[in-house]
Amino acid sequence: MEKRALLYEGKAKRVYQTDDENLVWLEYKDSATAFNGEKKEQITGKGKLNNEITSLIFSKLKKEGIATHFVKKLSETEQLVKKVTIIPLEVVIRNVAAGSFSKRLGINEGNPLSKPLVEFYYKDDALGDPLITDDHIEELQLATKDEVALLKEKALQVNEVLSRLFLELNIRLIDFKLEFGKDAEGNIVLADEISPDTCRLWDSNTNEKLDKDVFRRNLGSLTDAYENILARLGGPSHV
Amino acid sequence: MEKRALLYEGKAKRVYQTDDENLVWLEYKDSATAFNGEKKEQITGKGKLNNEITSLIFSKLKKEGIATHFVKKLSETEQLVKKVTIIPLEVVIRNVAAGSFSKRLGINEGNPLSKPLVEFYYKDDALGDPLITDDHIEELQLATKDEVALLKEKALQVNEVLSRLFLELNIRLIDFKLEFGKDAEGNIVLADEISPDTCRLWDSNTNEKLDKDVFRRNLGSLTDAYENILARLGGPSHV
Repeated sequence: MEKRALLYEGKAKRVYQTDDENLVWLEYKDSATAFNGEKKEQITGKGKLNNEITSLIFSKLKKEGIATHFVKKLSETEQLVKKVTIIPLEVVIRNVAAGSFSKRLGINEGNPLSKPLVEFYYKDDALGDPLITDDHIEELQLATKDEVALLKEKALQVNEVLSRLFLELNIRLIDFKLEFGKDAEGNIVLADEISPDTCRLWDSNTNEKLDKDVFRRNLGSLTDAYENILARLGGPSHV
Repeated sequence: MEKRALLYEGKAKRVYQTDDENLVWLEYKDSATAFNGEKKEQITGKGKLNNEITSLIFSKLKKEGIATHFVKKLSETEQLVKKVTIIPLEVVIRNVAAGSFSKRLGINEGNPLSKPLVEFYYKDDALGDPLITDDHIEELQLATKDEVALLKEKALQVNEVLSRLFLELNIRLIDFKLEFGKDAEGNIVLADEISPDTCRLWDSNTNEKLDKDVFRRNLGSLTDAYENILARLGGPSHV
């Protein structure tokens, strides 16, 4: 497999072409951003941690029969994935009230929800990734009604697998964000990453935050928190 | 009918008890507010205009078989209505992109939507009346799934009647906000007001704004615009 031209550079990853038109080469960067890019820092080792955590999680999802873009880990900071067209929706699944959800609805952070709740945000930096409804999605032609139903179903399925996985590691999956893409055949598959950048993960006993809120809220060392998650997932230690 | 103790004072209306426990006495105030109360003015004659416009519109809706709280107009600024428990949702129906919808989704104001779109906002001043999804409504127990479906159905029904009514008067119904309440028997009926305070109304030929955007955006005389609407509805002139 050959790494070719840079296709796209996002806040946390670079995407390169390969010699296979159906595959792309992902490189995880050492940058941490929050609040739609307003807070930004270089954090050595973060790319490696997220690449390894995401690789482990996507491998486990694959084993559970969930279709993803993931092919294999290439190096500490690189992955080979299927080339997909990303559906411009952030699919957020919430088990416990936290963050923007708590603020928006006036529900205390930490309050468990009566059942897992799926939200859609319109992936558009200029608009600040606004919360949107199913009808907005249809009006904007971001996805069809059937696709929205499928995204919800898949999101809840991933939530079940991940909640169980993390609970076994003594971690509460509070909420997380997924992105989906369409592959060359038009199949909708899970894409992007699943890492402490995209999940809220709290220690089951202490409720210690082991995710990007450590960075957003200046709660300590981001890499310590992410190392902790990687270690519990059985990943290679970098200490 | 006797006007008794003040039950509640809102931004635009006062609600009084009557000697009938199932009826309340509404008094329309001369205050104009926008941006969650940040912009505020006293505008002589506004209460009268909104009371008369709302009374005319609710009478027409009643004739079309739509259940409302409206009983009768009592005076230039007063109405008798059924006492209901307001469901804390602002139900917004949009035919054309405008206002917060345009900003949120990056759709130019004036772009017609492919079909009427219903949105729900959580009536909570402290939270700034945020947009919420059907799942949020269920989680917050503001209404059941069936009630949400009923609210959408009723909202679209009102939209059909009002769009037709206004079009006959050479007015485009761009969008509007409804509130619903439950009466003593638990029936969901249309409540609150329907006026240029709660609708966007544009002249069909010129697209001149004849609604609260005149106040929000400092476009001229609010009472001139509201008088125009009242006159077209066949109401009494106050000029």
